[in-house]
Amino acid sequence: MRTAIYPGTFDPVTNGHLDVLFRASHIFDNIIIAVAESEEKHPLFALAERLQLIQENIAQGQNVQVASFRGLLIDYAKKMGASAIVRGLRAVSDFEFEFQMTQMNRHLDDDLETIFLMPKQDYFFTSSSLIKQVARFQGKIDSLVPANVERALDRKFGHKG
Amino acid sequence: MRTAIYPGTFDPVTNGHLDVLFRASHIFDNIIIAVAESEEKHPLFALAERLQLIQENIAQGQNVQVASFRGLLIDYAKKMGASAIVRGLRAVSDFEFEFQMTQMNRHLDDDLETIFLMPKQDYFFTSSSLIKQVARFQGKIDSLVPANVERALDRKFGHKG
Amino acid sequence: MRTAIYPGTFDPVTNGHLDVLFRASHIFDNIIIAVAESEEKHPLFALAERLQLIQENIAQGQNVQVASFRGLLIDYAKKMGASAIVRGLRAVSDFEFEFQMTQMNRHLDDDLETIFLMPKQDYFFTSSSLIKQVARFQGKIDSLVPANVERALDRKFGHKG
Amino acid sequence: MRTAIYPGTFDPVTNGHLDVLFRASHIFDNIIIAVAESEEKHPLFALAERLQLIQENIAQGQNVQVASFRGLLIDYAKKMGASAIVRGLRAVSDFEFEFQMTQMNRHLDDDLETIFLMPKQDYFFTSSSLIKQVARFQGKIDSLVPANVERALDRKFGHKG
Amino acid sequence: MRTAIYPGTFDPVTNGHLDVLFRASHIFDNIIIAVAESEEKHPLFALAERLQLIQENIAQGQNVQVASFRGLLIDYAKKMGASAIVRGLRAVSDFEFEFQMTQMNRHLDDDLETIFLMPKQDYFFTSSSLIKQVARFQGKIDSLVPANVERALDRKFGHKG
Amino acid sequence: MRTAIYPGTFDPVTNGHLDVLFRASHIFDNIIIAVAESEEKHPLFALAERLQLIQENIAQGQNVQVASFRGLLIDYAKKMGASAIVRGLRAVSDFEFEFQMTQMNRHLDDDLETIFLMPKQDYFFTSSSLIKQVARFQGKIDSLVPANVERALDRKFGHKG
Repeated sequence: MRTAIYPGTFDPVTNGHLDVLFRASHIFDNIIIAVAESEEKHPLFALAERLQLIQENIAQGQNVQVASFRGLLIDYAKKMGASAIVRGLRAVSDFEFEFQMTQMNRHLDDDLETIFLMPKQDYFFTSSSLIKQVARFQGKIDSLVPANVERALDRKFGHKG
Repeated sequence: MRTAIYPGTFDPVTNGHLDVLFRASHIFDNIIIAVAESEEKHPLFALAERLQLIQENIAQGQNVQVASFRGLLIDYAKKMGASAIVRGLRAVSDFEFEFQMTQMNRHLDDDLETIFLMPKQDYFFTSSSLIKQVARFQGKIDSLVPANVERALDRKFGHKG
Repeated sequence: MRTAIYPGTFDPVTNGHLDVLFRASHIFDNIIIAVAESEEKHPLFALAERLQLIQENIAQGQNVQVASFRGLLIDYAKKMGASAIVRGLRAVSDFEFEFQMTQMNRHLDDDLETIFLMPKQDYFFTSSSLIKQVARFQGKIDSLVPANVERALDRKFGHKG
Repeated sequence: MRTAIYPGTFDPVTNGHLDVLFRASHIFDNIIIAVAESEEKHPLFALAERLQLIQENIAQGQNVQVASFRGLLIDYAKKMGASAIVRGLRAVSDFEFEFQMTQMNRHLDDDLETIFLMPKQDYFFTSSSLIKQVARFQGKIDSLVPANVERALDRKFGHKG
Repeated sequence: MRTAIYPGTFDPVTNGHLDVLFRASHIFDNIIIAVAESEEKHPLFALAERLQLIQENIAQGQNVQVASFRGLLIDYAKKMGASAIVRGLRAVSDFEFEFQMTQMNRHLDDDLETIFLMPKQDYFFTSSSLIKQVARFQGKIDSLVPANVERALDRKFGHKG
Repeated sequence: MRTAIYPGTFDPVTNGHLDVLFRASHIFDNIIIAVAESEEKHPLFALAERLQLIQENIAQGQNVQVASFRGLLIDYAKKMGASAIVRGLRAVSDFEFEFQMTQMNRHLDDDLETIFLMPKQDYFFTSSSLIKQVARFQGKIDSLVPANVERALDRKFGHKG
């Protein structure tokens, strides 16, 4: 059985993330979407909130588990028996950062492969940080995030949903 | 009458910004140079200072107004009756960020167009942040910013002009 | 009256080109879509065909004229009284080429401005050359080009429409 | 059973290609390395030679088949029952081209996923065309291509092996 | 005698830095590796530590001096009689930043040349910040930094060496 | 004595090339500007013409020799006793190609270093091929190439100088 890990901060999860997750779930037998604690980034949503916002978008019976991790990704992957890391690629700047991370992860563990998927082009301009900027001022984000994330952003910024 | 908005933080305005503004003023009937408050960026110059440093470089009778805004740019553009946003493009990294913002702004308001202009190549290496770094240590910036900005930077960093 | 020129080879015109043209027609009073002869590129469609495929997509009363040119674009722009060149920007590689052309055109005529527009993201992956490759093997291109171009490609490659 | 296609011209196959193939063979149950005829590129090696140079590097019992195809990749993938395309990514320029191809292939067949793998960094500077340039003048290419390709290049350029 | 300056924060020095330094020392008569104080970046290692970690990797008799500086690099270069700045180039994002700095430094002092060297590809994925992230969680960094830096990182993060 | 080689096709030499050459001549004791025959590129100017157009721009007593070469650059460099290759860097696309060439040349000869210089920003938009396009239609190129190249282009394209 081939297990892959899809890691990130997911602060919050977007439709772009869910699109990459969905595509990856057709390639691997099992996907672990692994939420990094990332306290040093001062996330808007607490780890427990980020996990729940993802969990609510996973259909029952889907080959996806939601989990959190801290420390080195390769250590977590080994513990979970994963053979691959999944990453979304949208832009040239993503590409260079991802290249550096991939080479470092291979240096640390040569048996763990990294594969890249491109999200649907409708989501090429979405990122969690841009969505938070727009949501803060009540811009429409309904087609860019799932419904529960839209409501959570409204609550967080004190708008009534 | 076609109105365009040229938004930015302008901390402080440079000759590169003024070059883009001048080029845009030949394409549109009216340009609003819109200074974002950007408190979260901890600007060196207060909003009022940034507005004044620009205003002093606008000739009387020019089709340019100086204003400030906060919140979503598309909301401000609608309020002002603008049909376009003007942005300067200098580098590949600009390009990717601008692409993302443009697609997001179209998502929010499909009637507002974004147009890009390239500054004169003499200004390709100027940016407000690099100019502040150089001015702090009394490097020569005289051909990169207007005279009032040069004096304002001298005062801010405690150099005698 | 502000006139802009939208130049290209248009072998053949795509929905991406028409999208840029449409956006530009809201910014300028008059647009000349100027088809370069480009014999050295051995185009699939003759100049007259390329002109006609565009013309059939211009609504009556629209502020767009279809024309051909050879020689330097800046000479043609001057002859036509245009004050701006319009270009579409899709990718980083576009950006670098366009930057070089823009600086050269400014060197040749500093009064002629170049403005860039981004096509709708649905058309980011279309290019005339990729469309020709796909059409050659009867791949579906119906949402990427106008109907008359689809029929013309079918005839050119000997498929029955 | 998950089958993926690794397409290319492979004129000739390099250690970089074999590295990507090897990585992909750990992710999918079955890989078809599919050599495009590419007559319009005037390849140095005939299709039969290119196929043989690859075949000689596939170990018996490996989950890899060598085949050729012409026409649209998505049609070939459907015929072979493949659910994914595998591509190597080395550079920003690769990235932009691959992005365009991926979006076009999704347009043509939304069920066929494209995944990207990065070759080992030792092979980041190798490409079939650069290797041919070097081999023509008897530069050392021994660690960049398998031994049978080195001999084939020697024969092709009239050097004694 | 030609002197060049190789500036940076070096928090801490990596094998990639030492590779660039070594290459530069074959081109110039004398190299000054100049450590910027960079207090505003909140470095992990104090200036004195960063200087010592470098010094311990400079062989006796090598044409390299280790020094620190603050203020404008061009002022420091002039004071030291240097005719060139040396910089490593790894990625497209490096390139754009370096281009901007080079043009600014030429603006400030046209007699000071900037030259770029590419590190060995084994070090393309190393950066001081990525190494610190990995070392924090006891990932293996032994081939990416010199031995004294590995020990210093262990002490800093409270691991026993 | 340190000798460097500045290789290229130089069809024809531009002020951008001469600017890089001039900068390199301050770093090395001796520069060989090495013109590649490049018959496969069908150059506009014959090798002898390209050599002469450069030679006429080298001042007597300058530490620059003009020569031609064919075959692998590293073989030529070894024959001439050069320790470095000099290359100009203008754009991201240059960067990726140069990276690949540099790594290949290191693979072939690890003792030969490649250094990169950025031309003056006035020449960032010039390239031999763009200049030929403009000169063909009598666009002004006088500040982009030396006077003898301007005259040679006029003669080549049948314009009277």
